[in-house]
Amino acid sequence: MNTIAPLPAAAVIAAARELLGDRLTTNDAIRQQHGRGEDTSTPTLPDAVAFVETTEEVSELLKLCHHHGVAVTPFGAGTSLEGHVNPVRAGISLDLSRMTKVLEVNAEDMDCLIEPGVTRQQLNEYLRDQGLFFPVDPGSHCTIGGMCATRASGTNAVRYGTIRENVLGLEVVLSDGRVIQTGGRTRKAANGYDLTRLFIGSEGTLGVITKIRLRLHGIPEAMTAAVCQFPTLDAAVNSVITTMQAGVPVARIELLDEVQMEACIRYSKLEGYKPVPTLFLEFHGTEAGVVEQAELVEAITSDHGGEGFAWARDAEARNKLWKARHDAYWACIALQADSRGIATDVCVPISRLAEALLGAKRDIEESGLLAPIVGHVGDGNFHTVILVKNDDPKAMERAWELDKKIVKRALDLGGTCSGEHGIGLGKREFLEAEHGAEAMAVMRGLKVAMDPKGILNPGKIFRN
Amino acid sequence: MNTIAPLPAAAVIAAARELLGDRLTTNDAIRQQHGRGEDTSTPTLPDAVAFVETTEEVSELLKLCHHHGVAVTPFGAGTSLEGHVNPVRAGISLDLSRMTKVLEVNAEDMDCLIEPGVTRQQLNEYLRDQGLFFPVDPGSHCTIGGMCATRASGTNAVRYGTIRENVLGLEVVLSDGRVIQTGGRTRKAANGYDLTRLFIGSEGTLGVITKIRLRLHGIPEAMTAAVCQFPTLDAAVNSVITTMQAGVPVARIELLDEVQMEACIRYSKLEGYKPVPTLFLEFHGTEAGVVEQAELVEAITSDHGGEGFAWARDAEARNKLWKARHDAYWACIALQADSRGIATDVCVPISRLAEALLGAKRDIEESGLLAPIVGHVGDGNFHTVILVKNDDPKAMERAWELDKKIVKRALDLGGTCSGEHGIGLGKREFLEAEHGAEAMAVMRGLKVAMDPKGILNPGKIFRN
Repeated sequence: MNTIAPLPAAAVIAAARELLGDRLTTNDAIRQQHGRGEDTSTPTLPDAVAFVETTEEVSELLKLCHHHGVAVTPFGAGTSLEGHVNPVRAGISLDLSRMTKVLEVNAEDMDCLIEPGVTRQQLNEYLRDQGLFFPVDPGSHCTIGGMCATRASGTNAVRYGTIRENVLGLEVVLSDGRVIQTGGRTRKAANGYDLTRLFIGSEGTLGVITKIRLRLHGIPEAMTAAVCQFPTLDAAVNSVITTMQAGVPVARIELLDEVQMEACIRYSKLEGYKPVPTLFLEFHGTEAGVVEQAELVEAITSDHGGEGFAWARDAEARNKLWKARHDAYWACIALQADSRGIATDVCVPISRLAEALLGAKRDIEESGLLAPIVGHVGDGNFHTVILVKNDDPKAMERAWELDKKIVKRALDLGGTCSGEHGIGLGKREFLEAEHGAEAMAVMRGLKVAMDPKGILNPGKIFRN
Repeated sequence: MNTIAPLPAAAVIAAARELLGDRLTTNDAIRQQHGRGEDTSTPTLPDAVAFVETTEEVSELLKLCHHHGVAVTPFGAGTSLEGHVNPVRAGISLDLSRMTKVLEVNAEDMDCLIEPGVTRQQLNEYLRDQGLFFPVDPGSHCTIGGMCATRASGTNAVRYGTIRENVLGLEVVLSDGRVIQTGGRTRKAANGYDLTRLFIGSEGTLGVITKIRLRLHGIPEAMTAAVCQFPTLDAAVNSVITTMQAGVPVARIELLDEVQMEACIRYSKLEGYKPVPTLFLEFHGTEAGVVEQAELVEAITSDHGGEGFAWARDAEARNKLWKARHDAYWACIALQADSRGIATDVCVPISRLAEALLGAKRDIEESGLLAPIVGHVGDGNFHTVILVKNDDPKAMERAWELDKKIVKRALDLGGTCSGEHGIGLGKREFLEAEHGAEAMAVMRGLKVAMDPKGILNPGKIFRN
């Protein structure tokens, strides 16, 4: 007879296996898959991975973990770039990727209710016949639960807002297993604290999202894409600033610098484009409205020396373009063998975009590292993917220095360290600089109120 | 020598007078003005009224009140319809209406930084020369600080969103006097908990807002108003539903029933209109876009039996129309001598609007009370102003019964008890029915974390 009390994690694993059967696994390969996302953090193995399928299972599992003080790290598609899914205190990796039901679509109210494992692509596939779409589009094949947790946005946010503006309500399992409903079905409400927005962007540290009610949009009558290439990065950035200040309601306005463009041409076999600074644009509206918008932007880009404003009206050409844009991260990674990328994600007021982006470009050149620039520039948000070979710790050090420089400049310009990727492990040191100690203390106070035992995604957002 | 320790409030008043001089007053008339807003709650007198002018003063005053456990009830323009400014536990009424500075306008980023006492009208007056405007428009002469606190919206929300979507960041004084900055200047951010949204709609119970950074919008190239009158309420409501489902980006779509229309014709001397169910509309866009929208809506209303789709292109005609709409509440009150109004504020999914609104109409008719209907129907939000004579307690009882019926139906239809007025004192009992006990427990937990002594606007949102 074993008289030694089992370790908390072991007790939890045994009880969780009762609950989930085979869907609770300690298999090494699966634990390794859940050791980190697409980031550069050092992977940590969870003690076990739980593939949950219902709210009740999440609730029972959290009750268990809460009782035993075992850490729980939610996991969606594992596409995080900031270490969100890295279970730094081991415990359970809570994999929600099998919760993929679309539970309701209310076409007449343009809303739907989904489980958190549904991806953007799956949802839009499902909705297409009804003339509706879900616009928030971070590019990767992430889950919508993960998008809520990290306050994601992407290429369409300039027109349709981020996930924050497109969630009507949530079902959330709290750290002790209680289940709450937030928000509702109405377009607006003044009915108590905004719990929905509290969970959006909380990165799994305040509760686990198990259902999401989304606001949908009608597929526009007309959509046109366009590509415009520029002699200099400066000309491209200033075209964006003028377009935004003119109030053109562009649906997408994405910038790729010459390095990123070369990567995309190679990786996605884009033909007919030069490896120079380039804008990818999309216009949504009525037939007449789309032409009006595109002509206005064409005039603006032409004023700034843009060349070859090429319209892609048919769906196939548009899809090829946006597929290339969405694969930009993989195109970067493919530029240099055996490498991972550190993705920066600064966002600044639009008037400071030229300073932030051209400054980042100079920093990259000085660093001697390979780091393409790509971004949702209509929102003032851009990424650099700093490439570092896996076996080059010195380059990694230089990469983090470069990262810091880019962030510091953005903060000095009234910007933020993260437009859409979140804080996770990678940006914790910047957060205090950005918000100040008192606001951070308020965030910590909320964390303690919501998760007194600190079991939910420990180590993320806060440094201790 | 007085050996009896002064009452906490008296000690605070003495110290606050040191701080504010004449701007701390115990004058009876001023205390009475701060006893309630435009609601029907029984007024309570604060011990004193503090007319603050700076963040530092608010901070010092809160430190004092926190130390002594004295209640603080923020006060803006006193236009609340739900008892928000009623100092039910006496203490200090914190009047922010003198904090009216516009601190920054960044035209190129379309944002501004203001103090909380600035009203919508003052701000738009200030901005006009720069081609910018602030769209959130609850109609009354409320302060923007009060709008933030109650998550206000109004006639333009259908197109431009509520205050929630139009605030970039806040400065907030916490219950113990600490000052924090939330949000920032960027259009989006994924940088930790969304403290901005936590304070918006918290009704002064979590902190006192002392600065507001707003998102502004460019004044549209073209604006047209239109009025359309209907044989039945049913026809008007169904025109709204079809318009919204067709995705027409109307800037305003307001419904007035025949009773409200008669009140407005009388009060605002509107000529050429019949006292029948009526829609007031406004379209914003390019010259061509506005015509396109208006023609589409004209066709929809005509299909539903609407008559006389009258366009008001010139600014004067438009302003007269919207002034009449904004004065709707006063037009109601003027309908019946010596009366106050209980304003309902339900909001439902657009597909359930006909059921909610026509059901409310039947309830009103059955009650025998006078209660015009007016609303921001594009958002599924409408008000009834139930008129009750000051000396008729029985009618007041019937009015509250009617109020309950209207709210219950809205909740049954997936709606909320408050689209934009907030909870205050008047809707606390509905809130738990709407959110459930667990979500309410989370809200209480946040309140305790942020205001452990319970000094900030006590008695609001929560029943105990």
